Amino acid sequence: MRAEVASIFDPMWAEIAPIGRDGGTGGYRRYAWSDADLSLREWFRSCAAARSMDVEEDRNGNLWAWWLPRHWIGEPRGAFVTGSHLDSVPDGGAFDGPLGVVSAFTAVDVLRSRGVEPTIPIAVVAFSDEEGARFGVACLGSRLTAGALAPERALGLRDSDGITVAEALTRAGRDPHALGPDSTLTDRVGVFVELHVEQGRALDLLNRPLALASAIWPHGRWEFDFTGEANHAGTTRLVDRRDPMLPFAAAVRAARIEAAAREAVATFGKVLVAPNGTNAIPSRVRAWLDARAADQPTLDALVAQVIQLAAEQAAADGVELEVRTESLTPRVDFPTETRERLATALSHLGDIPVIPTQAGHDAGILAAHVPTAMLFVRNPTGVSHSPAEFAEATDCHTGASALADVMAAWATTTDTPDGPTDTPGGPTEPPGGAN
Amino acid sequence: MRAEVASIFDPMWAEIAPIGRDGGTGGYRRYAWSDADLSLREWFRSCAAARSMDVEEDRNGNLWAWWLPRHWIGEPRGAFVTGSHLDSVPDGGAFDGPLGVVSAFTAVDVLRSRGVEPTIPIAVVAFSDEEGARFGVACLGSRLTAGALAPERALGLRDSDGITVAEALTRAGRDPHALGPDSTLTDRVGVFVELHVEQGRALDLLNRPLALASAIWPHGRWEFDFTGEANHAGTTRLVDRRDPMLPFAAAVRAARIEAAAREAVATFGKVLVAPNGTNAIPSRVRAWLDARAADQPTLDALVAQVIQLAAEQAAADGVELEVRTESLTPRVDFPTETRERLATALSHLGDIPVIPTQAGHDAGILAAHVPTAMLFVRNPTGVSHSPAEFAEATDCHTGASALADVMAAWATTTDTPDGPTDTPGGPTEPPGGAN
Repeated sequence: MRAEVASIFDPMWAEIAPIGRDGGTGGYRRYAWSDADLSLREWFRSCAAARSMDVEEDRNGNLWAWWLPRHWIGEPRGAFVTGSHLDSVPDGGAFDGPLGVVSAFTAVDVLRSRGVEPTIPIAVVAFSDEEGARFGVACLGSRLTAGALAPERALGLRDSDGITVAEALTRAGRDPHALGPDSTLTDRVGVFVELHVEQGRALDLLNRPLALASAIWPHGRWEFDFTGEANHAGTTRLVDRRDPMLPFAAAVRAARIEAAAREAVATFGKVLVAPNGTNAIPSRVRAWLDARAADQPTLDALVAQVIQLAAEQAAADGVELEVRTESLTPRVDFPTETRERLATALSHLGDIPVIPTQAGHDAGILAAHVPTAMLFVRNPTGVSHSPAEFAEATDCHTGASALADVMAAWATTTDTPDGPTDTPGGPTEPPGGAN
Repeated sequence: MRAEVASIFDPMWAEIAPIGRDGGTGGYRRYAWSDADLSLREWFRSCAAARSMDVEEDRNGNLWAWWLPRHWIGEPRGAFVTGSHLDSVPDGGAFDGPLGVVSAFTAVDVLRSRGVEPTIPIAVVAFSDEEGARFGVACLGSRLTAGALAPERALGLRDSDGITVAEALTRAGRDPHALGPDSTLTDRVGVFVELHVEQGRALDLLNRPLALASAIWPHGRWEFDFTGEANHAGTTRLVDRRDPMLPFAAAVRAARIEAAAREAVATFGKVLVAPNGTNAIPSRVRAWLDARAADQPTLDALVAQVIQLAAEQAAADGVELEVRTESLTPRVDFPTETRERLATALSHLGDIPVIPTQAGHDAGILAAHVPTAMLFVRNPTGVSHSPAEFAEATDCHTGASALADVMAAWATTTDTPDGPTDTPGGPTEPPGGAN
């Protein structure tokens, strides 16, 4: 079994290994609608074609490859959907996203080699622009599809070269006017199971290869826009300056201190300085705060305190500060019944650990509308969003094999499931329902 | 007279106004060897051609337009040289550099309209890459010519796209192997007078249009290279982080505090973050400190203290810090006798104020080898290195007219001057010498 999975998984993995990889850093730069992203989309289509799965790119650029039951008539509904995303952060690792897509196609092959005939539709999905590395909003594709982001807002987002989402879509041959919520989502998707590399060290500390997700911490991104006045770094007296770098520096320290006080995390990882000249006082510093906490009140208090401290320093330095919430994702509790159904399908692996995650995922976005679950694959160093991100091949194979087990259990159900409820965090299926 | 100067000055000024101007910010982006810089070089040649001045581009890319006395035989020597530079900082103003070049060509025309026949050579010069905006080292052209920077070091400097000076020169059709000191400098140049927009508000506060420079503060640039470890901004515990943004923020605050304590200035105006993703802890933050003080011991103490505080914080955060001196320019005292000779030529304007400057200039570099002086034109806001940099047209005309007076007084001397001494800061001319 392990050898069979490896023989399917490994060649696909090797195909995408060079795409979007920077020769200098060894990290991946697979930004949404970049050449690398378009290559990965072609690769996705070729994987589907090799499996006679029809590919649909939905109005928001998400790719769906369909395996319908024999004699299925009409649109798919109540499907078992699995996959993840193909884009990356700047200099990201190989696993974050692609592991879930490659595992999904692997699982399809495993079912077919076992002669499994699905009784409900199966889809492999690759959501568009999950990382938000280019336009600033994470999970752009799933947010749009779920109606969690207005198309007008999405279209106006700009990358660091000033290119809007609308322009990027047009350049990629897509129709920017198509963007919007998918009203068929809850009909089509019976369950979404996302397999993902773990982004912390919990499984390493537990010495286990797989986990199920309990919840996603609430998290968000805030753009801090400090506006001062450009001037000569040599000739401008300190008292005449309005240097936006100073309150930015205060915000960096405040974020760390306030996060530590709340057992939360807060990070300024992205900074754009204008004009960014050695001998020019900046006119403007834009910096993005990423903050996450175990619950919403804690997150709110953390961010409010960082903003207040930054604003006080900005006022003292004659700098204007505007803070804009770029995205805010509430806490997601993955539905218990769905998770228990996965655990049952994987009972041959023993008790699967159940852990929360601090990272956002498309599964968290969809959870507001359809039952969702996540499978995590061990990350021995916990390093993520870095070229050093790693997972052992044997753990990847174990993950793909487990996903096949879950897919097989779900797809051979005798009932076609009803649409899910929209109450994530509580029971999401009618008693006796099929998902 | 004022109308005559305006009729010469204004059309030249209008010709270069659009070159390298960013439509969004209104600032100039005239980086060395960029298309904008090459256009300005063509403009310089056309100005010289219109005046029948032969143009020579020296081995380091500096442009010299020559007006030789009638019947002059052989190489120019003991020349009256005036000019400045044409490149800019990112989103710089219109005046910093070009004002000195346009005023120099204007002065040539004024002398000719007065029928002045120079007895010594006159040159208008545009030094290459004065701002150092692209490759990090200011006054690159004059430093190379003066032997103050090794050609091998210059050739290896890189811009933010990784392009070296050698590559940029080659792309511009220049020979990078030509770079090096100009052994004829002290023979050729009898005096260098640089007219420049003031970069502070001293003249505005004095309500005067012009000043002479007394000295340039010692100043330098230091690259702070903070190396941590990229990781996921959500899933990495604070205690597991090695976030280089934290000690950088400490360095920013330290620079301000230590500068204020010494009546000096210190600025972090340029920052490059890798990978610069919102949800990634940076692997590396590179930031450049620009620091200046009234004397060298004060500057040394200031920089040492900023480095120490940054290093302490870096150690506490598990981050490595390397600091590299990118450039260091000692204090320059412009020679008194040269300044007094300018003051005499301008005695019809009354007592000209004499002020120091915190900004580096090509005149400061050349001062180690030839007599130099500077004329400052009032800047009513003091704003510099910004699109808002400004000087009134009438003050610009007054400056160009004054430069013509100085040029006329110098160039009609009856003695051909001897080569200058190399002792700036003291008397630099032999008694009775002509420069």
